[in-house]
Amino acid sequence: MTGRDGGADLAPVGNSPVVILVRPQLADNIGACARAMANGGLFHLRLVAPRDGWPQEKAWRTASGADRLLEAATVHPTVADAVADLHHVFATCPRPRHIIKPVLTARGAGVELREICGRGLRAGLLFGPERAGLDNDDMAQADALVRYPLNPAFMSLNLAQAVMVMAYEWWSAADPTKPRELMTNETQVATKGELENFLAHLVDQLDACGFLRNLPKRPGMVRNIRHFFERGEITEQELRTLHGIVTELAIGRRRRGRLERDDEA
Amino acid sequence: MTGRDGGADLAPVGNSPVVILVRPQLADNIGACARAMANGGLFHLRLVAPRDGWPQEKAWRTASGADRLLEAATVHPTVADAVADLHHVFATCPRPRHIIKPVLTARGAGVELREICGRGLRAGLLFGPERAGLDNDDMAQADALVRYPLNPAFMSLNLAQAVMVMAYEWWSAADPTKPRELMTNETQVATKGELENFLAHLVDQLDACGFLRNLPKRPGMVRNIRHFFERGEITEQELRTLHGIVTELAIGRRRRGRLERDDEA
Repeated sequence: MTGRDGGADLAPVGNSPVVILVRPQLADNIGACARAMANGGLFHLRLVAPRDGWPQEKAWRTASGADRLLEAATVHPTVADAVADLHHVFATCPRPRHIIKPVLTARGAGVELREICGRGLRAGLLFGPERAGLDNDDMAQADALVRYPLNPAFMSLNLAQAVMVMAYEWWSAADPTKPRELMTNETQVATKGELENFLAHLVDQLDACGFLRNLPKRPGMVRNIRHFFERGEITEQELRTLHGIVTELAIGRRRRGRLERDDEA
Repeated sequence: MTGRDGGADLAPVGNSPVVILVRPQLADNIGACARAMANGGLFHLRLVAPRDGWPQEKAWRTASGADRLLEAATVHPTVADAVADLHHVFATCPRPRHIIKPVLTARGAGVELREICGRGLRAGLLFGPERAGLDNDDMAQADALVRYPLNPAFMSLNLAQAVMVMAYEWWSAADPTKPRELMTNETQVATKGELENFLAHLVDQLDACGFLRNLPKRPGMVRNIRHFFERGEITEQELRTLHGIVTELAIGRRRRGRLERDDEA
């Protein structure tokens, strides 16, 4: 089973960069690269002189449903052939050599690729073979090198991981999600007035049960409770739950109080 | 060979978040996660109820030298046990459910983790099992969820890829590299004056060879040549090469000119 009739319903979205795997060795890695590309919204895959030929069934197995990318992949004898119809080429390179070339971070490359593709130009990303990486002639065909900021004490980056980071940055460069948002679903963040209602309810019950009976300390204690509740964004639903908790605890206490009095009687 | 005596010389650097793999199924994935962690400068690995037990030789094979992380990994029966000594816990979750919780992007989480760890607090990152992801009880133990901005049309993210993106964002959050820099090695970007010297040399030779003989068009042609050379950052070394190219082409032309005249004579 090559899975060529299955897989996710993927198609190119807009003008997106071509991923060019240069002399890839393992078909599993090619499949894993396709999966990572699909994760990041990339579609166009080109293979330069894959070691074991193409297609390879193993690639479909690791692509996890990104079959359409593998089906559409093209094979090229040389890097020059694979980039001939492109306008811009970036080459990923963990350890740039003694050459004169712009070096981009993965993030910088993601932003520039969006800008290039947004102008209707065709862009490509070169990834070198698993062990050796791109050679000097490969890199000489690129406009710029891309070096990921990663731990220099451990540079062994899996090929599909390298594609993942770049695909992620491509997607992120156009993603408007805020760094932090409170997911509230059908409820919403409570107003200060709604929180105040709850605090009044709570303090009432704390007065009733005697928790605040030390009058000189009372204002400070109330303030500390307020500090805690003011600190996060409480939702209306959570406030209703907290009202319920306070009410039920108070009723429970009064019931117990009655029972205790009954026992004493 | 488990490779337990080998591997890269990795050790924790500063206060970094703990990666907690919850009920991981495949040992290969655990090893690949360790590799991705090492790429991003993470060290502390905890396993909650790994399906096939621990240790597993396969993990060492896919860790690609991140052996130290696997050796230092601890096994825990529950998420509660694995997070008991931590102050903040983020849970990765591709499809947040109907719960009330802050949702961070991977980038937002990287920045917040740096901030939390910088205050001396201990942080953890939960990753769910390969197929099902984290369950509702797992997520209820987290301060916030982390959702990567990725292609909603293809959500099948490999576990090690998920760890890779977060490790990359952890590293990036403290990395000062500029998005684009010109790598010039031993040379440097030429000044406008140095470029002007070259352009004067070029125009001289173009006058000599007759390329600029159309006098009304000459100023525009010179300006267009200038536009091209002013566009990129040329280095001093590249200018020397260009000077050499112009000189040699001119000498070659003059030699040919002599030969042609000799032929005519």
